[in-house]
Amino acid sequence: MLISEIGEFGLIERFKKTLRLDHSVIKGSGDDCAVVAIGKGKYLLLTSDMLVEGVDFTSRDAPALIGQKAIAVSLSDIAACAGTPRYALVSVGIRKNARLAFVDRLLKGMRTMAAGFKVNIVGGDLSEAPRLTIDVAMVGQVRKKDLLLRDGAQVGEALCVTGRLGGSRYGRHLTFTPRVKEASFLAGNFNVSSMIDISDGLIQDLGHIADASRVGAVLYEESIPLHKDARSLQEGLSMGEDFELLFTLPRRQLPKLLAACPQVSLIGHIVDKRYGLMMVDRSCRLKQLKARGFTHFSRI
Amino acid sequence: MLISEIGEFGLIERFKKTLRLDHSVIKGSGDDCAVVAIGKGKYLLLTSDMLVEGVDFTSRDAPALIGQKAIAVSLSDIAACAGTPRYALVSVGIRKNARLAFVDRLLKGMRTMAAGFKVNIVGGDLSEAPRLTIDVAMVGQVRKKDLLLRDGAQVGEALCVTGRLGGSRYGRHLTFTPRVKEASFLAGNFNVSSMIDISDGLIQDLGHIADASRVGAVLYEESIPLHKDARSLQEGLSMGEDFELLFTLPRRQLPKLLAACPQVSLIGHIVDKRYGLMMVDRSCRLKQLKARGFTHFSRI
Repeated sequence: MLISEIGEFGLIERFKKTLRLDHSVIKGSGDDCAVVAIGKGKYLLLTSDMLVEGVDFTSRDAPALIGQKAIAVSLSDIAACAGTPRYALVSVGIRKNARLAFVDRLLKGMRTMAAGFKVNIVGGDLSEAPRLTIDVAMVGQVRKKDLLLRDGAQVGEALCVTGRLGGSRYGRHLTFTPRVKEASFLAGNFNVSSMIDISDGLIQDLGHIADASRVGAVLYEESIPLHKDARSLQEGLSMGEDFELLFTLPRRQLPKLLAACPQVSLIGHIVDKRYGLMMVDRSCRLKQLKARGFTHFSRI
Repeated sequence: MLISEIGEFGLIERFKKTLRLDHSVIKGSGDDCAVVAIGKGKYLLLTSDMLVEGVDFTSRDAPALIGQKAIAVSLSDIAACAGTPRYALVSVGIRKNARLAFVDRLLKGMRTMAAGFKVNIVGGDLSEAPRLTIDVAMVGQVRKKDLLLRDGAQVGEALCVTGRLGGSRYGRHLTFTPRVKEASFLAGNFNVSSMIDISDGLIQDLGHIADASRVGAVLYEESIPLHKDARSLQEGLSMGEDFELLFTLPRRQLPKLLAACPQVSLIGHIVDKRYGLMMVDRSCRLKQLKARGFTHFSRI
């Protein structure tokens, strides 16, 4: 049996089941970050993301933008848990005959993005590799009461998203701004019940919230904020790498939310689990959605 | 200019100079772990290591042993700082057509090694990659008074090593036991002043202690404990991946140390910086050593 037959999420589930975790682990793998209780007061957030040439960027992309993305992707994971990013470890696998100027620009991209969010790059590793491979591990902190995971969505709540979706893979995936400040503002000022960053595509990441919270959801097709780069609704629903925040909160907070955050859109609401994921289209017909989006090894 | 012209350590130095770190960073890159003061009481240790097929292991090595090594290498970094390993993030880049049985064994190797040291694998990432690539980021803790870095060696102190050196790359590099317990015992019971794990080779890692501590060192050729797998003295001096601890402490503690730890050898002493690295050979001649050992991109 090949790993492409069970796919990325199948592999992760398979591995997760076999792990034993001690009491300090509030949340192991299966959310944007792992959450551990170490010391008093705050939780520690831990996340890592591996980017590989030919999968997450191409050899024609500007090295500074590749470096920038490598840091930004992990920042987005910390944001999704409403945390403050603090430290990064950067492991780079690169060809022996790479040009020094290329590496300088790659590292400058990392440094600039990290500095913009006051993240300390405290170490990492360098190795030879046939294709450029960058793994960034990031450590963040979050006040216990601000922590947001995927598992708190309640039936009846509103489903919202920051920014605009779709078309990111035509270029924006290299230059997006992680929603660290927005997440912190939302966690501090509203009763947000669940949050995720849209990395795999709206429908698939909504599926992650639905699975973790044991709920269903209805999307309103005409409310989905498509980016000008998006060539179709489908791209807004499943292209992925938008790195916007998808979150739920009580409907009564919508007036205050939409007034305070013009970049936030109301795109649906949470329903009972038995309905699964559905969408109301422009003709007011309700249709079932299948989880679709980006996954490694296989397309589901 | 190619990166092979300045080598792994040149690249790291180049990058380090451009980084700005805040006051919570006790030690950034350039030691076995980064050290950060987050919360009260203990320091947090952060380290990451990337292993690539064809560089750190071969496609013929048993997957369980590859997984085991991936975790053990980071455990050894935490040990070198006398810390307790706590959490690991595991990023794996792997071919789409990999067999599920292979991945199961790889992950089992990781899980077993982590469990043996009570480390929680709390997350990570999976990606497609042309060659198997594993990056493990590890978080540890250390009491402030126990923290050991490379920079505390004093002129006149004894230089010691755990275990036996050389020949590791013939197989032992996949199956070694990281010296976590030994490091903690040494830090808790002796005035160890500096410590490093031997990953790049005895001479090169001794060079790291000498540089960081601004001292020189004299090795005693006949005291270097060669492993039975070592085919020559040279392999004991520079083959690398021994993952034993190299450390310094006041000479007056030697009797107690050598009585308590039969697996520790006295192999030299610390001298003034102007002598550099030297070795007394079996004919009692003193010769200068050049830093030699494993480095990525170039051999120095």
